[in-house]
This record gives sequence, C-alpha cells and structure tokens, in this order.
Amino acid sequence: MKKITVGVIGAGRIGKLHIDNIQQHLALIDIKRVADPYLDESWAKQKAIPHFSTEADDVIHDKDIEAVLVCSPSSLHVQHIVACANAGKHVFCEKPIATDISDIETALYAVKEAGVKLQIGFNRRFDPNFARIKQLLKTNEIGKPHLLRITSRDPKIPPAEFLKQSGGMFLDMTIHDFDMARFLMASEVQEVYASGNVLIDPVFAEHDDIDTAVINLKFANGSLGVIDNSRQAVYGYDQRVEVFGSAGAAYADNNKMTNTTLSTKDGILSDKPLYFFLERYKESFVAELQAFYHCIINDTAPLVSGLDGLLSVVVGQATHQSLRENRPIKIDYEKWGALA
Amino acid sequence: MKKITVGVIGAGRIGKLHIDNIQQHLALIDIKRVADPYLDESWAKQKAIPHFSTEADDVIHDKDIEAVLVCSPSSLHVQHIVACANAGKHVFCEKPIATDISDIETALYAVKEAGVKLQIGFNRRFDPNFARIKQLLKTNEIGKPHLLRITSRDPKIPPAEFLKQSGGMFLDMTIHDFDMARFLMASEVQEVYASGNVLIDPVFAEHDDIDTAVINLKFANGSLGVIDNSRQAVYGYDQRVEVFGSAGAAYADNNKMTNTTLSTKDGILSDKPLYFFLERYKESFVAELQAFYHCIINDTAPLVSGLDGLLSVVVGQATHQSLRENRPIKIDYEKWGALA
Amino acid sequence: MKKITVGVIGAGRIGKLHIDNIQQHLALIDIKRVADPYLDESWAKQKAIPHFSTEADDVIHDKDIEAVLVCSPSSLHVQHIVACANAGKHVFCEKPIATDISDIETALYAVKEAGVKLQIGFNRRFDPNFARIKQLLKTNEIGKPHLLRITSRDPKIPPAEFLKQSGGMFLDMTIHDFDMARFLMASEVQEVYASGNVLIDPVFAEHDDIDTAVINLKFANGSLGVIDNSRQAVYGYDQRVEVFGSAGAAYADNNKMTNTTLSTKDGILSDKPLYFFLERYKESFVAELQAFYHCIINDTAPLVSGLDGLLSVVVGQATHQSLRENRPIKIDYEKWGALA
Amino acid sequence: MKKITVGVIGAGRIGKLHIDNIQQHLALIDIKRVADPYLDESWAKQKAIPHFSTEADDVIHDKDIEAVLVCSPSSLHVQHIVACANAGKHVFCEKPIATDISDIETALYAVKEAGVKLQIGFNRRFDPNFARIKQLLKTNEIGKPHLLRITSRDPKIPPAEFLKQSGGMFLDMTIHDFDMARFLMASEVQEVYASGNVLIDPVFAEHDDIDTAVINLKFANGSLGVIDNSRQAVYGYDQRVEVFGSAGAAYADNNKMTNTTLSTKDGILSDKPLYFFLERYKESFVAELQAFYHCIINDTAPLVSGLDGLLSVVVGQATHQSLRENRPIKIDYEKWGALA
Repeated sequence: MKKITVGVIGAGRIGKLHIDNIQQHLALIDIKRVADPYLDESWAKQKAIPHFSTEADDVIHDKDIEAVLVCSPSSLHVQHIVACANAGKHVFCEKPIATDISDIETALYAVKEAGVKLQIGFNRRFDPNFARIKQLLKTNEIGKPHLLRITSRDPKIPPAEFLKQSGGMFLDMTIHDFDMARFLMASEVQEVYASGNVLIDPVFAEHDDIDTAVINLKFANGSLGVIDNSRQAVYGYDQRVEVFGSAGAAYADNNKMTNTTLSTKDGILSDKPLYFFLERYKESFVAELQAFYHCIINDTAPLVSGLDGLLSVVVGQATHQSLRENRPIKIDYEKWGALA
Repeated sequence: MKKITVGVIGAGRIGKLHIDNIQQHLALIDIKRVADPYLDESWAKQKAIPHFSTEADDVIHDKDIEAVLVCSPSSLHVQHIVACANAGKHVFCEKPIATDISDIETALYAVKEAGVKLQIGFNRRFDPNFARIKQLLKTNEIGKPHLLRITSRDPKIPPAEFLKQSGGMFLDMTIHDFDMARFLMASEVQEVYASGNVLIDPVFAEHDDIDTAVINLKFANGSLGVIDNSRQAVYGYDQRVEVFGSAGAAYADNNKMTNTTLSTKDGILSDKPLYFFLERYKESFVAELQAFYHCIINDTAPLVSGLDGLLSVVVGQATHQSLRENRPIKIDYEKWGALA
Repeated sequence: MKKITVGVIGAGRIGKLHIDNIQQHLALIDIKRVADPYLDESWAKQKAIPHFSTEADDVIHDKDIEAVLVCSPSSLHVQHIVACANAGKHVFCEKPIATDISDIETALYAVKEAGVKLQIGFNRRFDPNFARIKQLLKTNEIGKPHLLRITSRDPKIPPAEFLKQSGGMFLDMTIHDFDMARFLMASEVQEVYASGNVLIDPVFAEHDDIDTAVINLKFANGSLGVIDNSRQAVYGYDQRVEVFGSAGAAYADNNKMTNTTLSTKDGILSDKPLYFFLERYKESFVAELQAFYHCIINDTAPLVSGLDGLLSVVVGQATHQSLRENRPIKIDYEKWGALA
Repeated sequence: MKKITVGVIGAGRIGKLHIDNIQQHLALIDIKRVADPYLDESWAKQKAIPHFSTEADDVIHDKDIEAVLVCSPSSLHVQHIVACANAGKHVFCEKPIATDISDIETALYAVKEAGVKLQIGFNRRFDPNFARIKQLLKTNEIGKPHLLRITSRDPKIPPAEFLKQSGGMFLDMTIHDFDMARFLMASEVQEVYASGNVLIDPVFAEHDDIDTAVINLKFANGSLGVIDNSRQAVYGYDQRVEVFGSAGAAYADNNKMTNTTLSTKDGILSDKPLYFFLERYKESFVAELQAFYHCIINDTAPLVSGLDGLLSVVVGQATHQSLRENRPIKIDYEKWGALA
C-alpha cells in the first residue's frame, strides 16, 4: 500500500495523541515534521520525529508533506487551514474549526478553491457503538427514524481557566453531540430549543456559562431529538445514544473497563463507564486517521467534511441563542448551499 | 385488621381489573355493590358480586359502603366524585379527573368540604422500579436531582374511534409521565416546551393529534427534564425513567417476560419488554388500592391526591399550548394554593 | 369450563401456598375439604374452607372430591398416595415422593392399577425462564444439546433441626436440579460423579451432610452436564440454567425485585436475585396446578409423572453413593421400564 | 526508565503478535534480533527488525540480548529454554513448556541453576476481567472461595492437521483453564475427574481426542471447581469465569465488539462475544510482556513461573488419565517441592 507523509501543527495533548496513534497503529502514515511554539524537544527525540521546530510554516512549506494535522489552539485553526490549503496540503483539523461562522467560511472556501481534502476531527462518528447504530440505520433495521436521544455527560468539570475561552458548553462539549445528531439522522437540525442551568458549580455562572442542559431538536425530515448534558457525572463519562424508528430502536450503552461483577449482600456491583474521552473513544481516534488516509489515497470525499465542521457550529450558536432568548430558533441552511 | 366495604361505579376494563385485584389480593376490602349502565350480569354473578345494578346512585346511596371506586368514563368522573363526596364516601378515581380545569376544581372543593379522601389512579407511582428511584432520592443516594429522563412509548396505536375522545396524546398518555415527573422530582413543572409530529400514522393528524413528542421540562427547583413519547414501539411497551443528580443516577429499565437469552451465530437475543400496561404495571394496580385502604384505615393523606390529579392536567394543557404556539409556556400555581 | 373439586391433605407452608394460589388464581378448582392433624381452624375459617378436619381419611373418602393435593410430610406421601389411588382420586403430590425407592414403587404401582393421574410437584418446570429454554430446545434453536449447566444455591442454611430429617443435600435440594436436568435434556442421567464438602458451617458435618457440591452428569444421549450447589449464597437465591448445543446456547439468568440500577462513584449497583423459592418460583406454583387441572379435564398424561418423581430420587441416591465412594456411579433404568 | 534488549526465537503467529505488541506498546523493550527457520525476510524488513536469521543460536549467543522470547514450536521449547538459560538470558516462553513432565523438569532445573527469569505465556492472568476477580479475592470481597466455574469454549474446531500434534484437548485448550484455576484459587488441584465426549465432529474421535468436556476439580484448600469446554460455540469465543465464596461471588462475563443493541418485534439483539483469543485477550498479551519487563528490571519473581508452566501440564495429564480410566485421579505435588 502507498504511504503518505504528514506534518503536525500543534503538539499539545491531542496532537501527541494523534502522533502516538500513527506511530503505533498507522504504518502507512509517515510523520515527517512537527511544529509547536512550545515544543518539548526531548519528547520529539524520544518519539523519533525526524524534523521538528517551533514554526508552523516549517510544516506548511515542507514539499514532502502531503497532508497536515492541524492540532493548534482553535483560534489558529482557520489561519492554519488556509495556509495549508494554499500550499496544496490536505488537512485534518480538530474541532471546532472556529467559533465565528464567517471565519469558518473563509477556511472552507480556501479549501474548496485549493481542491484539497479537509477532514474535521469528529472522532465519535468512528466509535464502534455509534457506527453500529449508523449501520443499522443504513440497512433499514430501525426503519424510518422518529426519535433521537443523546446523553452526554462529562465525568468532572473542567478547570476554571479553561472555561474562560471554551466558547460555552454548547460549542465546547455539545458540539460533538450536534455532529452525532446530524451524522445519525442524516437530516439537518431545522429548529432547536434549549433549557439550561447552573446546578453543579457557581463557577459556570461566573463565566456566563451553564453546566446542565436539555436540548430539543427538530430535524428537516420531521423526526425529533433530544440531547441532555451535564458537566459532571460522578459515576464517569456517560455517553449513550438511542435512535428509535418505525421498525425498532438501536441503543448504544456505555463501555466499561471490565465485564466483571461482584455479587454481595448489598447487591450486584458492576464497573462504571470508562473514565473520559481518551479511554472511551480510544479506537475512534485511530479510525478517523485511517479514514483520512483512505480519502487521500482513494481520492474520495472525507467522511467528516468541512461543511460538517461548519454546521455543527451553526447548530451550537442557534442553541446558545435559544437559551439566551428562551425560545425555539429556526436555522436557515440556504446560504451554505455553495459549500455542500 | 379492620375491613372496608366498597362499591364500584363503572365495570369496564379498568373497573373489572380493580375488582379482580381486590378479590385475589386484597382480603380486607369487601366489594358490596357494582354499578354499570351496560352491566354484564353473568360476569357479576360469576364474580359473586353481592349486589349490582345499572345505576351509579345505588352505589352512592348504599349506607354500608365507605368508599367508592370511580371507574366510569372520564366525562362522568366529576359528577360521580361530587355525588360520592356529598354522600360522605371516600373516593378512588381513575385518571384524568376531567379535562376541564374548573370541573376538576369543582370536584376537589366538594371533596375538601366533605372531608373525605380522594385518591387518583396514578398507579405507576406504585411500580417497584419507579418506587425504588423515589426511595433512592429520599435516602439521598442520587444527591440533588439535576436531570430527569422519561421514555414512555406505547406498543401500538389506539383504535381510531378512541382518538376522537382521548383529549390528545398529552392528556391521554403523557399525563402519566407528567405525574411521574412531579412525583419523582418533588418539585412543580414551572415551564414546559413541547415538540411533536405525526410520524407513525396520518390518522393522528385527522384527529388534530400527534403520535411522537419530545417535551422539555423546567422544575421549580431548577432541575431540568425531558419526556419522549411514541404511540408505537414495535418492540413493545417502553417505560424507562432516569434521575441524574449530584451524587449519581438511578435508572429503571424495562421489565421482560423472562431473563432467558438465546445465543446463536446471529447474536444474543433477549426478551422484549412486557407487552402493555396490564402486564407491565400489574403489581402497581394492587398496590395503589392497598394504599387507598391504608389511607382510609389510618386516616392519612392519600399518596396520590386530588391536587396531583389536577396538576397533571394543568401541565398537560400547558404542554398542549406549547405545541400549538411553538413556545415555552410558564405555569402559575398560585391559584391552586387553597387546594394544597 | 368444567370445574373440579379437590381436597388437601396437609396444611403446612406448602399446603397453604397451594390453597392461596387456588383461591386467588384458579377459579376452576374448588377446594372442598382440608385435613391436617394440627389444623389451624381460625385460618381455615378465614379462608372459607367449606369442610376441614384433622383426619386425612375425611378427604380421601369424600365422594365429591375428584383429586387430592398431598402436602403432608414426605414420610406420609406414599401412604396418602396409595389411599387416594385406591379411593379413585387423582393425586398431586409434593416432592420427594419418598426417599426409599421400593416405597415409591409401591405408590406408583397403586396409581397405575387405579388408573388415576399422579403429578409430582416439580414446580420449576413451569418457571417462565426454564420453560423458555425447554421451548427453544423443542424448536431446535439450540440444536443438539451438548452441555447442561445448573447453578442452584440457597440464600441461607436451613435450621439444624431440619437437617436431621432432610435426607441430605442431594435428596432435599439438588433433587429439583436432577429433575430440571432430566426435563431439559429429555434424556436419562446414565452416570453421575459428585464432589462435595463442608465449607459453610460444621453443622452439616454433624449431620453427615455437605453444604457445597459439584455434580458431573452423563446423559444417555451422550451429552454432559454439571450442577453446582451451595447452601448459602449471601447475595440471595441463585438459580441459573444454561443449555449449550450445536446451534447455540440458552441461558436463564436470575430474576430480580426491580430493574432499577444506581450509578455512583463506586460503580453501578443492581438488585440481588429474588430472595428464595416462594418469591422466585411464585408463578410456577400456580402454573403447575393449572397443568394438573388440565391433565384431569382433558385426560392427558401429567406433565410431571410419578416416574419423574421416582427417577429424580434414583439419581439423587446414585449421587449420594458417588460422593461416599468417590467414584462415578452408573444407573440402570431397565427395572423401571414397566412404570414408563 | 531503563530499556531491555530482547531477541525472539520463532516468528510464527504468536511470535509476530509479540513483536507487534512490543513495537506498538512497549517502548522500553528493544527487539534486536529475530530467528526463524522459515523467516519471512520482507516482513522482517518492513518491521525494521535490526538483525534476523534462520538460526536460533544467533539470538541465543548475541551478547547484547538480555532476554529471549521463545515462540518456537512446543517441541523445541525445552531445548531453547535450556540454551538460553545456559547463555544467561532471561526467558519468556509460550505455553505449554512441553508435554513430557521430565522434559519440563530439565528446563526448569536449567533455569534454576542459571539464576535467570522464566515467565510462561499464560496471558489470561493479565486479562482485565479475570485480574479483577483476582483482585476481589485478594481484598477479601468474595470471602473464602468455595466454588470456581470456568466456561471455556472455542468458536470453531481447529484444522484436522493441527489435531494430530495438539496433545489432546486438555493439554492444548484446557491448559489455560487449569492455569486460571490455580491462579484464582491460590491452591493446588488435588484431585480431578473428567467426563468428555465427541459431540461436534467425528474427526476428534479419529485423533483419539474429544470435543466436549466437563472437568471436576478438588482444591487443596477444600474448595471445588468445574471447567466446561467445547471446541465449537457457534456464537463465538465463550470465556466466562465465576468464583463463589463465603462473602459473595465475582463473575466475568464475555466481552463484545460493541455495547449497541437492536430492539425489534423479534426481541432485543446484542453482540456476540469477541470472536477468538486474538481479539478477546488483546490487552493481556501486552500486559504479560510488560510484567516480564518489570520482573527483569526490578529483579522480582515472574508473575507466571516455570513451576506454573509445569503444574498446568501435570493437571492436564491427570485429567487425561481420569478420562481414560473414568475415575478421579489424585495428584501428588511433593516431588516438585524443590522447584517451588
């Protein structure tokens, strides 16, 4: 099989995760160069990264590099996507592309013009549980979908300094659920209504944010959906999805560390869900890069497009508006027709 | 233990169910008299009902009868409650008391004035699964409740002629879920937002009704909730409830006919949920009458009060309004303070 | 439907259970008369038993009585079966018929000669979980059976005085499992090997008994089986059965009080199995009497025959011998051919 | 952390698995040299193995190599262990060490004399499910163990040519279960009784082997155990373990590909167990080499000793004898005291 040569911009937690996954599981992807302004050189040497520097441009202008993994802070995504596209590189970019819709449009038009691939890091689409639901929908075993239920609860609240720049719960956390909703239902969210509150920690109120939410979705195909979110489930990362339809229902339960139970006089005790996204979505991070490799090699459309990246933000912003104004918000998709 | 003597008004499906349960499981309740305009005399003889007739008044004015089970059509509930109360009888009345709020108020004031007990037939409060959730809330093992999720889906659509007079999905079917929400959260629904659609059968549209809904709830204590409903789950009666809180989550799954599974090359197959409410809530119908007996014998407050019966209708009507107007509807409870 | 009139000999715990079940669930069975040497008259009056006395003969010679439930102590079963058979009554008899094989034979020959029905109280055959396994075997969804696994563990040790006359664990407790093995595999146990030990309480050693056992079975059809027993599972009554075959496996898990779970930082806690046989096998006690009624009314063979009662004891005794002699014991069935 | 340099003898399926695991997950183990008489050079180059040849001696006599993974055919294990020990190398050896007890003794005495580490490849001890049971035993949450149940069924029968040299089901397949029994119960198998049959395919009879077995174990501490085996579970690899004790029971259920279920009118369908040992015990193969690394670096006893390798074969041979002679076989451990 043909190999591809990639570079990585940003070697923080998620950048390092991708690099590890490539080195361990993706023999057909060669990492040639990594750039990070705060690069940990001893780490880079230990990982045997052939070339590394503090400058993103070194990656962007390396002629051998066919594709770039953009793992920089969200605020730099657009700038890096545009530069990569202009340099003719395919791009894998972490979510969210940006929080400003016109910035995202800028990135998407640059990609479109350059004719390069852009895949967004909605890794959950590649999770085996959710992929199974998608497959059951495709093979029509659920029938016509009527209801979608997503439960998405984090195991603990993020640090206060993170909240300052998170963009709010809907754009930081729920955005994955919005993408999952669009992915599974294969229909756009036409209207959204959100209720939310601060029930866990007043720190969220200080940042004009919430920690608990229920979000009502209406899809273009007439089906309905609901997402419930919490920033802190003491029993662990709670990630469940259900699609109910005319012929049945598919339900993805949580994954656990073991399938061992303990029966005592107090009851039957089983494991909590896997702790957080690194454990829970482990395989999906590998699978999304595998898909990225294949879309380049086979010249096919990325399984998570730039438009997917844009529309999840659009839904997130409408949700935010709904919460602020306490009314359902309709979304008009016509203006993005050119990006489809 | 002291016995009580009861009469039954209305011997349709639910009236017969209560009579069977009393005869089989409640030795301390004596059924003296049953009235039904279309009474099946051979059935009454087979059941060894001591006295029976077509006139409700025969029950209401029987001096031996201490309590009456009102199982007549909903449109007659208020008239029968008032007459029973005026005659000094305790009343067990099926839900809904009525669909008109002021009619319900009339019934409740009559009961209050007469000083008799009135218990409403929200049997699900007595289901072992949901009662366990309630208990876990009381013992604080879930902590402060943040989120409530109710999934309530019927196994098949009702006959078209039933839809004509059902009062709509929210007052016919969801009303049980509204009561469950109020019961578990121990807090009133302050605001409601509903989305709904006709996805199963156009017959619902013909009756200006819906068959699928997602209902967003805001409780007075700040917590949030969601109910999802469908008129037809092909895999059976789907009745699940979850309460998520600061210390954990309690989840009531469906009950099945057996716990036997079959493993084959196609997967592991387990039983569907119990078919419908008669099977699923079997024990709860006995337990609610047991509770009714005890509230009379011990002169305690009924576990499901007339006000519970009123407020579930209030929430149902607000939900209906929300659907019609596509906006969240606030509920004002002050006017019913006198009935608390 | 035609009714039958029955009498009951023995109104201890199990006799009372059957009487309650008949009165609550089996409207086509009339209890005319109950006999017990220590009869509780106030109980009999409360239950509205028409006739009662301390003499079994009063039941046996009542001309109206078509069938007798023999619920006397095991040591009197044979005497009561023979007398009932001679008086032309059908007999439902609790297990074990007796502990002496030739005594059982006496009873069975009396029944055969009189041409009456005899059904033995192996109620577990009527349990919905195990009945489902039987059905899956009949419809060939498991294929040819290869392996049988029965786990059968009591929730607590019986009182010491009971152990004196229990006949030992194999004849008192495992006998139900031997019957289940014969019932499901539809093949006789040709050879048995038992290991056992006293691990819970020395009281068992004092009565020359054991409290823990693993029993290896070889069936006539070549398939293999294993039963594991304990006199004390602290988490409750553990009653699981699995049949593994060429096309799959059927597995009956324990039943629980509720399907509600609690998720906390310590894990996910679910209910223990239902406490003991009265709770766990509730429905099966009703169903076995329903079957007894039907075999009389339709003149069909009882679903649990006298021979079933005999052979479970035969297997139990061979198991006892295997434990004593620490070697596999073959069982010869030829001598009972005449009773088939 | 200090690295170790290893060589590998035998690059068949299991040798390649270990090499992949080391390269992907064990950065502190350097593979310097691989030897295999039928070495696939293109594979070795692709894997960037620094040195490779067809001669085991090249590995054994490489001065840089501290430890050797012996993945050669079982018949060569002893020869390779002895040579490695004599050359002062630590050894990780696949199971079984050999099928002849005195050959195994030869290997173990060589290791003892050389003072090197020998770890045997009983990977299942490192499986998270079973490791959890072990931990629950150590923390005394199960109490004193009374009963052990192991279900171990392969998904399909092996090729006929494999059966010729497999050593029989007990030494090829059950040997893992014998080791699991010894590991969990922390007590030796004092007596064994086996029943077995050919129920799946006559090919087993042609090789004087069986395909289905139930094995009864008595442990030195008085507890009892049972293993059931099948060469073909059509629903997949069935690997369940239960330990029942005075304070409770721990049960390890199968692992599945996903936790997604499909509810339809036919029931609720969930995934089959993971297909076979490569999928099911994936993590355990990494963890056993991690443990091997640590026992060398920290100079501690291997978690699976040479004696463990010997005694599992001892139990396997006793089981084989029990099957042949149809009687329980006692095992005398005194002679191996010197190897403890």
